Amino acid sequence: MIATGSIRAASETGDALLLTPGPLTTSRSIKEAMLHDWGSRDAAFVQINREVMERLPGIVNAGATHVTVPMQGSGTFAVEAMLTTFVPSDGEVLILINGAYGQRARKILEIARRRTVIHETPEDTPPDLVAVERVLASTPSITHVFAVHCETTSGILNPVQEIGALAAKHGKGYLIDSMSAFGALPLDANAIHADAIAASSNKCIEGVPGLGFVICRKDVLEAAKGNASTLVLDLHDQWTVFQKTGQYRFTPPIHVIVAFHQALTEFFAEGGQPGRGGRYTENCRVLVEGMRALGFRTLLQDQLQAPIIVTFHMPGDPRFDFQRFYDALKERGYVIYPGKLTVADSFRIGCIGRLDRTHMQGALAAIRDVIAGFGMTSAAMAA
Amino acid sequence: MIATGSIRAASETGDALLLTPGPLTTSRSIKEAMLHDWGSRDAAFVQINREVMERLPGIVNAGATHVTVPMQGSGTFAVEAMLTTFVPSDGEVLILINGAYGQRARKILEIARRRTVIHETPEDTPPDLVAVERVLASTPSITHVFAVHCETTSGILNPVQEIGALAAKHGKGYLIDSMSAFGALPLDANAIHADAIAASSNKCIEGVPGLGFVICRKDVLEAAKGNASTLVLDLHDQWTVFQKTGQYRFTPPIHVIVAFHQALTEFFAEGGQPGRGGRYTENCRVLVEGMRALGFRTLLQDQLQAPIIVTFHMPGDPRFDFQRFYDALKERGYVIYPGKLTVADSFRIGCIGRLDRTHMQGALAAIRDVIAGFGMTSAAMAA
Ligand SMILES: Cc1ncc(COP(=O)(O)O)c(C=O)c1O
Ligand SMILES: Cc1ncc(COP(=O)(O)O)c(C=O)c1O
Repeated sequence: MIATGSIRAASETGDALLLTPGPLTTSRSIKEAMLHDWGSRDAAFVQINREVMERLPGIVNAGATHVTVPMQGSGTFAVEAMLTTFVPSDGEVLILINGAYGQRARKILEIARRRTVIHETPEDTPPDLVAVERVLASTPSITHVFAVHCETTSGILNPVQEIGALAAKHGKGYLIDSMSAFGALPLDANAIHADAIAASSNKCIEGVPGLGFVICRKDVLEAAKGNASTLVLDLHDQWTVFQKTGQYRFTPPIHVIVAFHQALTEFFAEGGQPGRGGRYTENCRVLVEGMRALGFRTLLQDQLQAPIIVTFHMPGDPRFDFQRFYDALKERGYVIYPGKLTVADSFRIGCIGRLDRTHMQGALAAIRDVIAGFGMTSAAMAA
Repeated sequence: MIATGSIRAASETGDALLLTPGPLTTSRSIKEAMLHDWGSRDAAFVQINREVMERLPGIVNAGATHVTVPMQGSGTFAVEAMLTTFVPSDGEVLILINGAYGQRARKILEIARRRTVIHETPEDTPPDLVAVERVLASTPSITHVFAVHCETTSGILNPVQEIGALAAKHGKGYLIDSMSAFGALPLDANAIHADAIAASSNKCIEGVPGLGFVICRKDVLEAAKGNASTLVLDLHDQWTVFQKTGQYRFTPPIHVIVAFHQALTEFFAEGGQPGRGGRYTENCRVLVEGMRALGFRTLLQDQLQAPIIVTFHMPGDPRFDFQRFYDALKERGYVIYPGKLTVADSFRIGCIGRLDRTHMQGALAAIRDVIAGFGMTSAAMAA
């Protein structure tokens, strides 16, 4: 398993490092929190869960105005719960699409039979705010705007603040998928007029997967009674039962939640969003500089790049074979991610999870080593 | 924390023993399987997940006819996915209700706007099969029958085989919630004509919570395309993507699944359903005999009692205070469960999870101790 001339990288628990959009490498202490069993009505567990729910809104400056409603499953479960709880059956959503997660929201709304209006731009291009405003001004039937904060498909940072200002100006509700950005990028739920923000346990808070959550403006949530078209994804019902009993309606993923609690403790110990975001920004800087030095090209212009995941063009050199590249890096202890783009042949390297600049430098050394093995000295050579 | 004259019971990891309907006490090795991180596309994880999916149908003798479709979330997510994937929007379901989980299925179907016909009996009473047959014979618009295998509300064993024979005779689909029974009670998916059987990771297979699954008859699943009224709960879509890629559509609860894989290994090492069910049957026998010797009365007649969870009447003696009883047992390391019945004031003690007869004997000794502390020598005294 150990490649000649290089040491295999490993996390604290001996696993390959996950340079992906998630699930991510987590700390040993977060996983060790799962070595116990609790009853779901147990007072100690109920308290742990309450702390999780109370700590989350503060991360987006929404402690006084918003509440957390957790949703078992994954991030997509939280997004579907958000869309189908807040958008009534006669609602209409302007969806801003520039990647797979915007497309997914569209699919969710179409299956749930909510009307949609689409504003789509290519995967390397933010929404056109002038066009968005024109649609909002000319379509009074629109009730909500939906945007993806960091569209993980490319790693692009969408202008959630400016979109929120337009939604507010035209009196529309505003729903955000902040899955891959929550906790790492600054976000002020009130300044951007967000009704609801969906995220999950296993991205920038660095917990293990199995729990989504939605930070909901309290008065908007209260008004959403009866909108939902399912039992399990009804955020209003989930929240009502929490208020009455402090407990989940249906069995919670207890071990995942206890690990998430530990992850939040470690998140705040690192300085919260500025600390976490600072580490990821440095990871991203080291990665992009190092990859450019090796001749790789990023898909996005620097001012559009969120410090979450970076998309690189596939080198044109015929000696470069992505599957062998992926496998050789995996063997050296670094797991990267294939591309998912329609605009360009590409692959992705994540900057998030329990990784710091030394891990990124290690990944760069491994990448140099692997392309040298292909007989390439630079990825730009034949590109 | 240690009560006078008694030792505090504890699981292998030092936790109180969960004598509940789940989540349950699990083995240390199952929880230790969660001490690693995997990428969701990782070949090792994909293989672990494939083994989980391939092993499950064999437990209900359905390896040749049925496939497993896992569903992130909890058991209820699997039940809602089953009902909304298999029952088309113009379908109609005869729901057999004798407890909270039958009621929940009704709620799910009503929210999803599927028509229902209700056959309800009290919580201590199985469905009336003569009446069920009459309804089936006289209501051709019924497309499906839904039943709960062990209705955990009381612990009653419902006649799933006889119900299945009636459904088959009248040409109806048959959907079963076997959440609390799967793996412990014998069930032959083909002999009972089951189209689909829903269960979860954290009941009799003794994994940790966070994953539901549905064992689906392959041809019926294939015909269910387009029925679902959500994206995330669409079993047909989830299955189609598995067949193409071997992967989940949305991030799986990786640690929960790896623990479930270990739980299945331990389940088969114990002799599969006969072994697991045998241990629970012995737990149940020891519990019921011991409780009766202390003067407690079971809600159910013995022939209706599943060896999963036992409902006891609340003693009438005014010195018996349930909250103090619960707390004192908890302090001694035994977590029991409140009742959820409408027919009688009651509490419940579970027989499932990593517990054997010595644990049940320990619980009985603790119960004797606690009621003696109330000044009672028998729970029957003033009942
Ligand atoms: C922006 C965004 N939205 C939604 C999701 C879906 O989350 P999950 O895979 O947990 O369902 C992701 C996952 O990467 C994401 O990055
Ligand atoms: C028979 C039955 N059905 C459904 C459920 C719901 O499962 P969950 O709490 O995992 O959603 C349970 C849980 O105890 C059950 O016993």
